[in-house]
Amino acid sequence: MKSKRIGQRTVKLQNKPKIISSASVVGPKEGEGPLRDYFDLVLSDDLFGEKSWELAESKMVQTAMETAVKKAGKKLSDVNYLIGGDLINQILPASFAARELAIPFLGIYGACSTMAEGMCLNAMMIDGGFADYILSGTSSHYCTAERQFRFPLELGNQKPMTAQWTVTGAGSILMAAEGNGPYVKYVTIGKVIDKGIDDGNNMGAAMAPAAIDTIYSYFDDTKDDPNSFDMIVTGDLGKLGKQITQDLLKERGLDISKVYTDCGLKIFNLEEQDVHCGGSGCGCSATVFSAYIYDKLMKKEFNKVMLVSTGALLSPTSTLQKQTIPCVAHAVVIVNE
Amino acid sequence: MKSKRIGQRTVKLQNKPKIISSASVVGPKEGEGPLRDYFDLVLSDDLFGEKSWELAESKMVQTAMETAVKKAGKKLSDVNYLIGGDLINQILPASFAARELAIPFLGIYGACSTMAEGMCLNAMMIDGGFADYILSGTSSHYCTAERQFRFPLELGNQKPMTAQWTVTGAGSILMAAEGNGPYVKYVTIGKVIDKGIDDGNNMGAAMAPAAIDTIYSYFDDTKDDPNSFDMIVTGDLGKLGKQITQDLLKERGLDISKVYTDCGLKIFNLEEQDVHCGGSGCGCSATVFSAYIYDKLMKKEFNKVMLVSTGALLSPTSTLQKQTIPCVAHAVVIVNE
Repeated sequence: MKSKRIGQRTVKLQNKPKIISSASVVGPKEGEGPLRDYFDLVLSDDLFGEKSWELAESKMVQTAMETAVKKAGKKLSDVNYLIGGDLINQILPASFAARELAIPFLGIYGACSTMAEGMCLNAMMIDGGFADYILSGTSSHYCTAERQFRFPLELGNQKPMTAQWTVTGAGSILMAAEGNGPYVKYVTIGKVIDKGIDDGNNMGAAMAPAAIDTIYSYFDDTKDDPNSFDMIVTGDLGKLGKQITQDLLKERGLDISKVYTDCGLKIFNLEEQDVHCGGSGCGCSATVFSAYIYDKLMKKEFNKVMLVSTGALLSPTSTLQKQTIPCVAHAVVIVNE
Repeated sequence: MKSKRIGQRTVKLQNKPKIISSASVVGPKEGEGPLRDYFDLVLSDDLFGEKSWELAESKMVQTAMETAVKKAGKKLSDVNYLIGGDLINQILPASFAARELAIPFLGIYGACSTMAEGMCLNAMMIDGGFADYILSGTSSHYCTAERQFRFPLELGNQKPMTAQWTVTGAGSILMAAEGNGPYVKYVTIGKVIDKGIDDGNNMGAAMAPAAIDTIYSYFDDTKDDPNSFDMIVTGDLGKLGKQITQDLLKERGLDISKVYTDCGLKIFNLEEQDVHCGGSGCGCSATVFSAYIYDKLMKKEFNKVMLVSTGALLSPTSTLQKQTIPCVAHAVVIVNE
């Protein structure tokens, strides 16, 4: 068999696994941001009619997934696999959504790298001929994340300016062996990198080294030109993490500054929406990709994009045990013909 | 491309992804059980020299993974991907192990189905030509699981007789495109099934319907003969869950009773070791497969085995919110030439 590996870390897909549809659901605050017109559904209430935020998050990701399938003109029963996960303990939202969707389920955990992790697996499984249709997606919710990782919302804690705002949102894509849409050309799976940061309110700095490692590996493997991209976009490094990534890559001789942005800067208006360093959470890159970037790809306004979702693999348990924050980032390169 | 799908749910691999080595590490209690002679390392202290049980669990899975690579005569840098996860919030043990191993990492969450989920992904990624070597594995620890999902150990709570004992153990396998060893022939990914059980001390009954659904689907898809297997083995249904699975499959016209057992019954001596319904946890099927079953396959005492690891996708959060327990089971069929 012809090798699909390029260089040390990158896989070149051979059969053009296509993203045939996408969908997104966001909360009220995200619906007031600059991407408001791109989302399929903006909730007026972040409980979405449920009794808890966790159940609301589950309903959001379920709705995004159902919507992606419907927009492709398919039925849930056409879908061979569902790949999902999120930030919440034991991926409660994804598991509960999978129960309702009744599609064979592969649970993943990559913290906020989940969107890209799911797309990498999705693309490889479609490319390898193991499925005709695979749905992947993820979610986050400001209220579920805050109370699990930081403090009860009722305390009204103030945050330092390095902190980010967890996106309330869910995004999903449907990939297929055949159909219309941009396709995944390369994937680069990330290593777990930990530079010793232990501050859960400075995730951009914690995750930047993982993003740097993955982006650098992709370009080292493929000898691709950063300026051939319409956009290279990290998941949720925010303002500070983006600057670190750009600067340190430049120091290593790789200048991505002309095409580089971060989903956490796209989803909110940082000046007006009081989100400090920007958006974060699994739902950040999931909704920005599923809504804005996918739309641009479909309209051929973008023809080559690299999505690098970034995840901080900390947990409430590791934080209590005074551990530093291991991070990971996965890259997916999506192109038009 | 020739379709690799058989029936509704099953994939037939085309390129014989081989399990070229395995390794296991267990705690003291597991080392006193009937499989004591099969494990690579039996700890005398379940803290393994660490300051917390979570860090001990991470060191256990890291050790199992390193040992599997070493036993195959390979280096960590030969391995293209690491696939891992466990029961602990945000898969702390696997993430921290991945940081030390420095292999590109795909985190998964399937609760106690993790061993089989990892093997399914591993086999498809090797079969599809995306990697030469992939390491997968998982762990559980009695003390980390009890304090996260149930009560602090210091309370000394009594358990009902339907409860099981979480295995302190880690198991890992190394799969390869080329090499010696039994190979993965079929995989069947499970749906999330929830029959309304909400008792975390009766996981066998909660998970049995997921195992039944997956096992039945495999035989429905392939028309295979249960008695052609040397062993069909579920992950951790224990005594009660095994009985339910066997009985309900028989009612559906599928009699697996001659070859069927459960890893939770193999790892402990139920009469003498005070473990109620038997072993459970990600580490249960991981160690029983990596130690006992792999040994039998290598010696050609077994030539066809189905491993069906079973997972309960509950979380401390869902339990507090009075939710029922969604469950999942994935099947891997491993054969010799």
